[in-house]
Amino acid sequence: MSDIAALPFRKMHGLGNDFVVLDGRADSRALALDPSRIRAIADRRAGIGCDQLIVVAPPTDRSADVRMLIFNADGSEVAACGNATRCVAWLAMAESGQNSVVIETRAGLLDAESRGPSLVAVDMGPARLDWREIPLAQAEDTLHLGISAGPLADPVAVSMGNPHAVFFVEDADSVDLEALGPGLEHHPIFPERSNIEVATILPATEPGRGRIRMRVWERGAGITPACGTGACATLVAAARRGLTPRRAELILDGGSLEIEWLPDDHVLMTGPVASSFTGLLDVSLLS
Amino acid sequence: MSDIAALPFRKMHGLGNDFVVLDGRADSRALALDPSRIRAIADRRAGIGCDQLIVVAPPTDRSADVRMLIFNADGSEVAACGNATRCVAWLAMAESGQNSVVIETRAGLLDAESRGPSLVAVDMGPARLDWREIPLAQAEDTLHLGISAGPLADPVAVSMGNPHAVFFVEDADSVDLEALGPGLEHHPIFPERSNIEVATILPATEPGRGRIRMRVWERGAGITPACGTGACATLVAAARRGLTPRRAELILDGGSLEIEWLPDDHVLMTGPVASSFTGLLDVSLLS
Repeated sequence: MSDIAALPFRKMHGLGNDFVVLDGRADSRALALDPSRIRAIADRRAGIGCDQLIVVAPPTDRSADVRMLIFNADGSEVAACGNATRCVAWLAMAESGQNSVVIETRAGLLDAESRGPSLVAVDMGPARLDWREIPLAQAEDTLHLGISAGPLADPVAVSMGNPHAVFFVEDADSVDLEALGPGLEHHPIFPERSNIEVATILPATEPGRGRIRMRVWERGAGITPACGTGACATLVAAARRGLTPRRAELILDGGSLEIEWLPDDHVLMTGPVASSFTGLLDVSLLS
Repeated sequence: MSDIAALPFRKMHGLGNDFVVLDGRADSRALALDPSRIRAIADRRAGIGCDQLIVVAPPTDRSADVRMLIFNADGSEVAACGNATRCVAWLAMAESGQNSVVIETRAGLLDAESRGPSLVAVDMGPARLDWREIPLAQAEDTLHLGISAGPLADPVAVSMGNPHAVFFVEDADSVDLEALGPGLEHHPIFPERSNIEVATILPATEPGRGRIRMRVWERGAGITPACGTGACATLVAAARRGLTPRRAELILDGGSLEIEWLPDDHVLMTGPVASSFTGLLDVSLLS
């Protein structure tokens, strides 16, 4: 029953994409978790349960306030996660009392700002539109990619550090993404596979701001309630096609994100952060 | 970020059947949760996540040490849960330093004893074998119930406070329980529906102790990794049919339970208890 050596954590989520956050600055055990321990922590019945395990670490770059490591539930490390970035930014701003923060990730430095008590804006970096940067297997017009599957055709390809293919459709909710996602993800045009988005332009309710309903098939994960980079890619794709202004509300299964494609090509994502509980992990899950 | 009014909890599991345990003796808010709050806590992404929420409460019976309330993830209250009873017994014994404890439930008083650092035996009460007690819709021989579905036929009906129908088969793992479970659960012979078990007798490895592989379709829940009352019912059914002695290891998807049908007709269930973590629930989930 002793909690003497238990490891503190916080459980958070952004639009239902949920995270166990460990502080590797306060307890170095969090910096040395092997994949089997990460899987044990991510287990939703015998562990804490999460989509991604986040470790907050001391920055290695002098201009960063904190560094974040991101691990999928299978123990593999990934470079970027928009929803988790908002959560870590919220924690770091609460800690420092500042209104902005610089987060070091494997994908680079990310600037984040508070936009309300539980609302955070993150600069997700530039959208990349060249076929080599997606990457595609051969030279193609990324504004009109020549692939199709069932009722889906003619997507826009965008890289937000990870590859996306955005299909515009009459009714995103009626697309059988479960059936079409796997084949599109693994299409030979995508040498590193791709995230797949289906999106429907909705009537705007204010000038200068579009509204887009979208659903995501995440590379390696399947249908998820919210994908931050997918929302960014979808807004960029819609603006490139002239379907919306460069700013829009993106309505995902897990809730809404506000996305803006800035004049400098960077994409700004604003969305909610929620803290569900704090806890002490029993050491048996760490050994 | 304040945790001043946060609610303490413990996350536990027995054979992968997982629980959020709240102490209503220490914090009366835990005694007054409405179904929407229970659903919020049980949510695996935005809440803590669990199969059942358990509230430890002051006993109303003078011979009991503690009382437990059991709520399914949908907010409905249930009378019995064998895996949760072991967890609450483990907590109460750790608290009192005693080796045994009496737990008050809506299904009656349950005696529990420690059998090792994380092993607890619970007296699950008497097996009930009369057709009226299962209950069945009409007089039938509970040792040979005249129902069938696909390859399943001739089950034994047993009540452990809840109804069970146990089918003995050559290979429980090859039964399509997902397809057959719903129809059997709702068979008109069961006016209160029924839990459905498929079981295969394995070679014994020691005298006086059988071994049974089993899988469970739980009434209202579908296939679950472990069902304590289902394991009790299966051992009773096997012993009634003369397939095993009155004691056996029951091998479920989530792990093993040791079940013994005592001479006084009570069924003793011995199995593991695991504590995953303790936590403080953010008050926003309670309001």
